[in-house]
Amino acid sequence: MSAIINDIEIIKAKTTKINEVDFDNLTFGKVFSDHMLECDFKNGSWQAPKIVPYQGITLDPSAKIFHYGQSVFEGMKAYKDANEDVWLFRPLENFKRLNISSKRLAIPELPESYFMEGLKALLEVDKNWIPTKEGSSLYIRPFVFASGKGFHASPADEYKFIICTAPSGAYFSGKVKVLIEETYSRSANGGVGFAKAGGNYAGQFYPTQLAVEKGYQQVIWTDDTNHEYIEEAGAMNIFVRINNTLVTGPTSDRILDGITRKSIIELAKAEGIPVEVRKISVKEVVEAAKNGSLKEMFGAGTAAVISPISGFGYKDADYDLPEIADSYGSKLKKIITDIQTNKSEDPFGWRFKVE
Amino acid sequence: MSAIINDIEIIKAKTTKINEVDFDNLTFGKVFSDHMLECDFKNGSWQAPKIVPYQGITLDPSAKIFHYGQSVFEGMKAYKDANEDVWLFRPLENFKRLNISSKRLAIPELPESYFMEGLKALLEVDKNWIPTKEGSSLYIRPFVFASGKGFHASPADEYKFIICTAPSGAYFSGKVKVLIEETYSRSANGGVGFAKAGGNYAGQFYPTQLAVEKGYQQVIWTDDTNHEYIEEAGAMNIFVRINNTLVTGPTSDRILDGITRKSIIELAKAEGIPVEVRKISVKEVVEAAKNGSLKEMFGAGTAAVISPISGFGYKDADYDLPEIADSYGSKLKKIITDIQTNKSEDPFGWRFKVE
Ligand SMILES: Cc1ncc(COP(=O)(O)O)c(C=O)c1O
Ligand SMILES: Cc1ncc(COP(=O)(O)O)c(C=O)c1O
Repeated sequence: MSAIINDIEIIKAKTTKINEVDFDNLTFGKVFSDHMLECDFKNGSWQAPKIVPYQGITLDPSAKIFHYGQSVFEGMKAYKDANEDVWLFRPLENFKRLNISSKRLAIPELPESYFMEGLKALLEVDKNWIPTKEGSSLYIRPFVFASGKGFHASPADEYKFIICTAPSGAYFSGKVKVLIEETYSRSANGGVGFAKAGGNYAGQFYPTQLAVEKGYQQVIWTDDTNHEYIEEAGAMNIFVRINNTLVTGPTSDRILDGITRKSIIELAKAEGIPVEVRKISVKEVVEAAKNGSLKEMFGAGTAAVISPISGFGYKDADYDLPEIADSYGSKLKKIITDIQTNKSEDPFGWRFKVE
Repeated sequence: MSAIINDIEIIKAKTTKINEVDFDNLTFGKVFSDHMLECDFKNGSWQAPKIVPYQGITLDPSAKIFHYGQSVFEGMKAYKDANEDVWLFRPLENFKRLNISSKRLAIPELPESYFMEGLKALLEVDKNWIPTKEGSSLYIRPFVFASGKGFHASPADEYKFIICTAPSGAYFSGKVKVLIEETYSRSANGGVGFAKAGGNYAGQFYPTQLAVEKGYQQVIWTDDTNHEYIEEAGAMNIFVRINNTLVTGPTSDRILDGITRKSIIELAKAEGIPVEVRKISVKEVVEAAKNGSLKEMFGAGTAAVISPISGFGYKDADYDLPEIADSYGSKLKKIITDIQTNKSEDPFGWRFKVE
C-alpha cells in the first residue's frame, strides 16, 4: 500500500507489531514502531524522504560509518493528549542542532522541510504507537550517518537520514547517584563535544562502566584540562541549587546546548527563581555539600526530562543530597511536562501540534 | 563451496571480481577482494569466525553503531614477494592495539587466534588479490562495531568483527603540505585519542576540509589545551629533523601509538641516527624553519608508510621544506619497505610469513 502525506511517499507495513507491545510496562528505546523515515544523500543532494516499514539497513562493509564514525543524531519526544492530539516540544531546535552537529562532522546539512514534513508524516502513520500513560512518550530518534564506501579517511559521498520511533517509559528508574570524574574526559577544547556525534557517546561508556562498578549510575564530566569544572552528564546537562539559586554551566564547544537546559533556565526565571549561568567548580560543589548550602542537583535532557540526583562521589568520598520539600527540580519538571503534554498553558510557544 | 582452513569455515564466492581490477593503476581502499572474515559477538562471547563472500551487512536501524559510534579498527598491509610468499608486518601489534582500542570503547576484546588464524585464512583464500607492483599492497582493514540494538546510551550486547581487504596503491599522491592547527582539536586528555576509534576520524574531517580549502592536504594536530605542541597528523605520527637529530613526540592518551612510528625509531637508532622522543613545541618548529635547522618533516603510518612533508602553514605564514640530498625519510622508507616486502634481512624479526 502506498500513499502520500505532506508530499511524502508512504509504503505501509503489511502487518503491525503493535499488539505485541505492553504499553503499561514500557522500558526505554527497546521496541520500535511499524514505520521509519528514510532519506538518502547521493549525487550531491538529499533525495526525497520516504516512509517505509521499519526494516534492516544493508550497507557495504566499507561504509564509512563502520570505520570513521561519521554520524549524528537527535532525541525528541511526541506526546498524545486526551483529545488524541499529538504534540512535539520545540522540534525546530532539534532540527537546527542536527545541522549544527552535521556541519562539524562534515555531513551534508538537511533541508528543514525534509526533517519537519518527514517527521509529521511518520507520526501520522504511527500515531497509534504514541503512549498516553503518564511518564511515557514516543521517543523519536532522527539520525544521519555515512553510508558511502571506501577506506580513505575522508568524508563519505553518500549518507542516510533516518527517523525511527520507540514508545518508551522512563530513562532512569529512580534517583541517580553520580560520580564526578577526575581521570577520563568526554570532549576536547576545539573538539566535537557540542555536537550530538555518535563518537562522543562511545567514549563515555568505559568510564561510566567503571563508575557503575563503584555504585554510581552516571558520570559528571569535567573539563579535560584540570578536571576543575563540572560540565554535563552522559546525556543530560547539569543544574545545582546553592541555597536558593539555581546554577548551570555555560555551554561551550565541549558541551551540548541542551534544549531542556535552556527551557529550564527560562522557566525558572519566569517562576522567579534566581538563575545563574556560570562556571561551577568541583571545589564549590564539594564545599557547598559540606556546609549544607547545596540543596539539590538534577540532570536535564529530553530522554530523562529532569532527573533528580541523590548524591555524588568525588575522590573516594560520597556526598548525599537528602530530598527537600520545595524542590526546584520537582517543580520545574511538573511545569515543563505539563507544557509538553498539553496540560497547561504554553506561554513560551514551545509546544508544536502535529497536524 | 565450503572448506576449512586453520579450523575456519570458508564459504567461497561463486564468481570472482578480480578480472575487473586494473592492478597497474590502483588507488587506495576503493576496490575490495572477493571475501571477508565475519565473526559475531553474541550471548556474551565471540562466535567462531567464518570466511564469506564480500557482501552487504544488514543491521537493525537501532544498531548502536549508528547512534553511539561504538567502533574500532586497524590498518595493516600484506605483501607478496617474487616467490609468491605472503608477508605481514608486526601483525600482533595490530591485534594488541585493536584490543586496547576495544577496551576503551567498552567493546569486548577478541581472542588472538580468531584474529590471527582468521586473517591468515582470509589471505590464503584471496592470495591472488595481493598486488606485487612496487608501492602497492593489499590493504587490510580489521574492524569491530556495535551491532546490538536499542536507544539507551550504553554499550551494545552484540558486536561484529570483520576483516576486509583492498588491493591498494599509494595513500597520498606526491608530497604533503600540512597546516598546524590552532583552533580545532583531535582529542582530549583522558579521552579516546590513543584508540583507533571511528569517532576520532569523523571529528577531523571538517577541520581538514578547511585546511584543504586553504591549499593543504593534512592538519597537524596540537594539544587541545594551548595548541602549543605538535602531536600527530590525520592518520600518521609526525617526525621532524632538526639539524641531524630526528625528533618525534611521546605517545600519550591523546596520540595513537603508531607501529610505523615505533619501528622508525628503532631503525633510525640502528642506523646511527640520533633520535629524541620528546615534546615538540610549535614555536620550536617555526624557529627551526626560520633559522634553517629544520631539515625535514615526515609523517609515518601504515597507509602512507613514510610521507615527506613539503612545507607547513602556521598562523597565515607558510614555511617551505626544500628537498634535501641525504633525507632521513627517504632512507628510512627504503629500509622499512625492504623489510616489509622481504627484499632485505629482517634483524628485528618484524616480518611475519603467512602460511
Ligand atoms: C551529552 C548531552 N548533554 C545534554 C543533553 C540534553 O539535551 P536535550 O535537552 O536537548 O535533550 C543530551 C541529550 O539529550 C546529551 O546527549
Ligand atoms: C591517528 C593515527 N596516527 C598514527 C597512525 C599510524 O599508525 P600505524 O603506524 O600503526 O599505522 C594512524 C594509523 O594508521 C592513525 O590513525
